[in-house]
Amino acid sequence: MNQPSRHAFFISDRTGITAESMGEALLNQFDGIEFKRATYPFVDTEAKARETVALVNQVAANAAERPLIFSSIVDEDIRKIVKTSAGLHLSFFDAFMGELETELSLRANHQIGRTHGIQDTERYDARMEAVNFSISHDDGVSDKDLQKADVILVGVSRSGKTPTCLYLALQYGIRAANYPLTPDDLDSTNLPRMLKPFKHKIYGLTIEPQRLHHIRSERRPDSRYASIENCRFEVNEAESMFRQHNIPFTNTTHKSIEELAASILIATKLQRRF
Amino acid sequence: MNQPSRHAFFISDRTGITAESMGEALLNQFDGIEFKRATYPFVDTEAKARETVALVNQVAANAAERPLIFSSIVDEDIRKIVKTSAGLHLSFFDAFMGELETELSLRANHQIGRTHGIQDTERYDARMEAVNFSISHDDGVSDKDLQKADVILVGVSRSGKTPTCLYLALQYGIRAANYPLTPDDLDSTNLPRMLKPFKHKIYGLTIEPQRLHHIRSERRPDSRYASIENCRFEVNEAESMFRQHNIPFTNTTHKSIEELAASILIATKLQRRF
Repeated sequence: MNQPSRHAFFISDRTGITAESMGEALLNQFDGIEFKRATYPFVDTEAKARETVALVNQVAANAAERPLIFSSIVDEDIRKIVKTSAGLHLSFFDAFMGELETELSLRANHQIGRTHGIQDTERYDARMEAVNFSISHDDGVSDKDLQKADVILVGVSRSGKTPTCLYLALQYGIRAANYPLTPDDLDSTNLPRMLKPFKHKIYGLTIEPQRLHHIRSERRPDSRYASIENCRFEVNEAESMFRQHNIPFTNTTHKSIEELAASILIATKLQRRF
Repeated sequence: MNQPSRHAFFISDRTGITAESMGEALLNQFDGIEFKRATYPFVDTEAKARETVALVNQVAANAAERPLIFSSIVDEDIRKIVKTSAGLHLSFFDAFMGELETELSLRANHQIGRTHGIQDTERYDARMEAVNFSISHDDGVSDKDLQKADVILVGVSRSGKTPTCLYLALQYGIRAANYPLTPDDLDSTNLPRMLKPFKHKIYGLTIEPQRLHHIRSERRPDSRYASIENCRFEVNEAESMFRQHNIPFTNTTHKSIEELAASILIATKLQRRF
């Protein structure tokens, strides 16, 4: 027997990121159903709403079960049109806005484009600055970079430092520098000279040797660099170093970038910049 | 008179990203209130839930109005504890999960950690590959890079290409290359030689000269590079090039990275990789 399937639509008057994020959080709770996903972002006029309804209805007409529709639409008129489509409607603003208006004794402005827009140029600049910081300092680090950093992620090559730095920058505006532990650094458990003055803002990343071996093998198959023995050695040395110097660290193997970034934010008590 | 203020808590058993994203979408709809935000992620045990309740109650006791609590907590027992805290509870799973269970005739597994976790190593690898692609090809591009790219963002220096490429990689797993238009390229409206074979996957970014002048001045004050005349010239030439070759383009000045990435995804009809 085939796995049952359902169409799931994420409909938004802006980027669709909130609708997707809420929809995925819910869908991930159900096993055994294949969800066929489609996102319709920027549905911000009544005409576009009607087009979207037609598309959804077409899919619905050919499906065994009605689609699930996760929507995040601020404008009430547009929302009403979208709700005429065939499907189960889980409407984010319908669920919460009324209660919040009552609580705040205030009417929402119902203006589109307030989420994920540039509302504040200074905040935006902080974010851009953090992204540029992460990128321009990704390959080689200097004392000056480390000084300016909010946090310094330390770990062996391919342990997940770079994407985590970038996510910290994009999501939280944090300036994260990235210090790769080279085989030279791993000859002893001393902290690398360059890192010593910044011990208070170091955070370690480690990874299971088997996973590291897999990742490195994609890059340089059959190299010493990628060999399981070398991966085991580097990971062991790095973890010993973290332990000896009381550096907080986490294992990246089973964590997503979002989880890593959020954990680092808590562990370091860093304040996000926006 | 001071602006009224309210405490807003985002409480989650995972990263807090869904709770924040839903909370911000709602809060952004209310003007004239200062929201004092705090996020409590990884509230994934009953003990942590009780700690969080104590923290919220402490804030509530000292505030004129009760706090707003946006929560995204899968486990029902933990959710129940969090809901004992003083405040208006807008609980994401409470709002939608029952309806969805009925619709799917299926009980949710109520397992923590299914969102923003690594559920699928292959998908995760695609994402990492895209991030690494964007970073390693950020500074100089080669024919080979352009060949492998899903999309090539083209624009003058500081028009927003790099962060947009990174966001496309992190959020959608899209391999985005980045081709900076140099003054040499702008001497004529011909497409740069390197780009000619890839015209079908080029997307242009432009920016208001005044904003470009501001951004460049932060980097190199009083330079010819940053001067308003030069910014105007470069932007005009770049836009003429886009128009002449029917290259779709967008103005980044008033758009966030999320909006840019989502717009590019639609305009290019690219399929996300996860």
